[in-house]
Amino acid sequence: MTDLETMGMNAVKAGGKLSVLSTDRKNTILRAAADRLEADTDSIIKANAEDMKAAEGKLSEGLMDRLKLDESRIRGMAEGIRSTAELQDPVGVILDEWDVPSGIHIKKVSVPMGVVGIIYEARPNVTADAFAIAYKSGNAVILKGGSDAVRSCKAVSDSIRNAIRDAGEDPDVLQFIDDTDRAVTNEFMHLDRYVDVMIPRGSAGLIAAVKNGCSIPVIETGSGNCHIFVDETADIGKAIPVIVNAKTQRTGVCNAVESLVVHEKIAPAFLPELWKALSAHNVEVRADSPAREIVPEFAKASPEDFSTEYLALILSVKTVSSVDEAIEHINRCHTGHSDAILTADPDNADRFLKMVDSACVYVNASTRFTDGGEFGFGAEIGISTQKLHARGPMGLKELTSYKYLVSGDYTVRS
Amino acid sequence: MTDLETMGMNAVKAGGKLSVLSTDRKNTILRAAADRLEADTDSIIKANAEDMKAAEGKLSEGLMDRLKLDESRIRGMAEGIRSTAELQDPVGVILDEWDVPSGIHIKKVSVPMGVVGIIYEARPNVTADAFAIAYKSGNAVILKGGSDAVRSCKAVSDSIRNAIRDAGEDPDVLQFIDDTDRAVTNEFMHLDRYVDVMIPRGSAGLIAAVKNGCSIPVIETGSGNCHIFVDETADIGKAIPVIVNAKTQRTGVCNAVESLVVHEKIAPAFLPELWKALSAHNVEVRADSPAREIVPEFAKASPEDFSTEYLALILSVKTVSSVDEAIEHINRCHTGHSDAILTADPDNADRFLKMVDSACVYVNASTRFTDGGEFGFGAEIGISTQKLHARGPMGLKELTSYKYLVSGDYTVRS
Repeated sequence: MTDLETMGMNAVKAGGKLSVLSTDRKNTILRAAADRLEADTDSIIKANAEDMKAAEGKLSEGLMDRLKLDESRIRGMAEGIRSTAELQDPVGVILDEWDVPSGIHIKKVSVPMGVVGIIYEARPNVTADAFAIAYKSGNAVILKGGSDAVRSCKAVSDSIRNAIRDAGEDPDVLQFIDDTDRAVTNEFMHLDRYVDVMIPRGSAGLIAAVKNGCSIPVIETGSGNCHIFVDETADIGKAIPVIVNAKTQRTGVCNAVESLVVHEKIAPAFLPELWKALSAHNVEVRADSPAREIVPEFAKASPEDFSTEYLALILSVKTVSSVDEAIEHINRCHTGHSDAILTADPDNADRFLKMVDSACVYVNASTRFTDGGEFGFGAEIGISTQKLHARGPMGLKELTSYKYLVSGDYTVRS
Repeated sequence: MTDLETMGMNAVKAGGKLSVLSTDRKNTILRAAADRLEADTDSIIKANAEDMKAAEGKLSEGLMDRLKLDESRIRGMAEGIRSTAELQDPVGVILDEWDVPSGIHIKKVSVPMGVVGIIYEARPNVTADAFAIAYKSGNAVILKGGSDAVRSCKAVSDSIRNAIRDAGEDPDVLQFIDDTDRAVTNEFMHLDRYVDVMIPRGSAGLIAAVKNGCSIPVIETGSGNCHIFVDETADIGKAIPVIVNAKTQRTGVCNAVESLVVHEKIAPAFLPELWKALSAHNVEVRADSPAREIVPEFAKASPEDFSTEYLALILSVKTVSSVDEAIEHINRCHTGHSDAILTADPDNADRFLKMVDSACVYVNASTRFTDGGEFGFGAEIGISTQKLHARGPMGLKELTSYKYLVSGDYTVRS
């Protein structure tokens, strides 16, 4: 049985040392880890081949592809770690500073979270990505990967741990739980004595299970029922490519558009044009009655369609009679991820930005921009759909907390 | 049975309207609520008398005192609301803003959390305090008070709701659950469809129950096993008053010192002086063997003493041989609330500030300063002992989240 108690204590200890490491030193270790991963390519591919063999016939083609590691993908992981080394250190930033009349001086300084737990599925690359972003932000990580990828993740983790140890630092900043027993996962979710935050990455089912079963503070990530509202003043010729981009550029991702809301005044001119473009991309449209009267080729939408994240070439369409009705519909059906308005009316744009309660609200742009890379964060640990702590794309800064450093001259409270 | 589903929906709706209210309008409503509370003094005192009568013989003298409302305490609640109106509005602040080469412009803006849930004990004043801070930060609140105070809390809540309604705004920004059934509390803790954050306020038992039973993100507050480390270079004459202040100025509070860590080199000169001062304040000292050899009057400390938040006139004393041993001991036994070093050595001060993993770390000052008022926040909803979202005293700003407003010119991701 995995000794999570010891893993937790070791993570806190290693994290404490890491929290005061200089930026240069952290970057040196990150580059050493990247080099080591590339040097260990053969053994990692060998471990991965065992995972692939065991998963044969069990996993879909898409999941098998996500599981597979080859030389180029391992180089990709190493490059990811190197690029994280280039990013600015988020730790030790003076966020605020002030004197208090009582005689104390207060400084608010960014610090690492401490120990970050990550529960993910059969994607071995998350092992390297999560380590890099956690390490640069001064955090120890304890990882629990999907059982189908356990040998691959372990091989990646061992390689990085060896690099850290050989460089003279504590390898327990990265620990991988290779026990696939569910009881271990459950114990991990209650390790709040040692783990400061838990981030689930994967399917909606995994995220819900972690959110409901965890006594550690959780950051909910990833689920995206994203909307685009086509206002009556939208430019039809320009709107179509935005929708095609948001629906078809990549379909299995959380920032793809899943539902279109259309103002009834523009619908007769707009929807036939939309159908031309979408049918050319093999997109199925599921629409309400007013939309189907305009384009009979649209399938009939059920009420559930408007709350569904398809992650597929399907789009729901709902007609509304005002921007307020659009906002109300979106706030009821969305997941708080990313929603957009296409409009020429600045008042409607402003109202939409203010009233739509999502991490990212867009005017005249594709929802596909909700991404750490596109936002310029350099690295991303996930996209938060909750409002506590971090919202939207989470980069290095979002893996930090802060503390108050207070100094006085033997000052007492009166 | 209380219809929490409807309460949740109404809170989201009312919160949406509140989130875009102007600062002036919010302040007007807050002042109207304060006036109304004072005007309703008689009916509130009447409701409170019923609570007091029902609690007789059930609650301790201290809890009876906390439960009691009189004219001066109601005026205090009203003044608290008025002073919150004077504070700066934390909503709508542009936190960051930048252009991305892809052509989009990103603005990061502070927004209310949405709906805040608060579970507290038999302290009617929390009803008014929580409303004020939530309202000013643009949040709807759903409150669940202790069963012993349910009539008092309901009377305060009704008074404020009437003020809001009469002023023409939606009273559902403040809703009080007056059902004392445990099943209702449990359902409330799973209302994550509507409630964005849950803040438990009260005993360690209450906080643990909410933390473990809640599917809503929780901010853990309040528990404080605070330490003061007397380094070998501390000024004994100045150190004693700081310790006396931290231990005796108020004993039942989370920022009072509970444990003293003393460098063995200063212990022989320091501990007898300390005992003189503390015994004059009737403080019981529970110490390890080296300390007891110096002051035989000290009681013997058990290992549990060092992890105990006494909230009473008791202090544990532990001797150490170095600042590192002190840091290690504190990080193992504390609750991450507030810890202090008394020293003349700037290197040790720096090391302590960096390595002690607490919300507030002090050099030469009393731990009693960890307080929203003392920090100059003007209002406080609690003191967070977790690292996610907010750490230490939480004021208006800590009840906000942010969102990204992104604009383009029908921009697509390539």
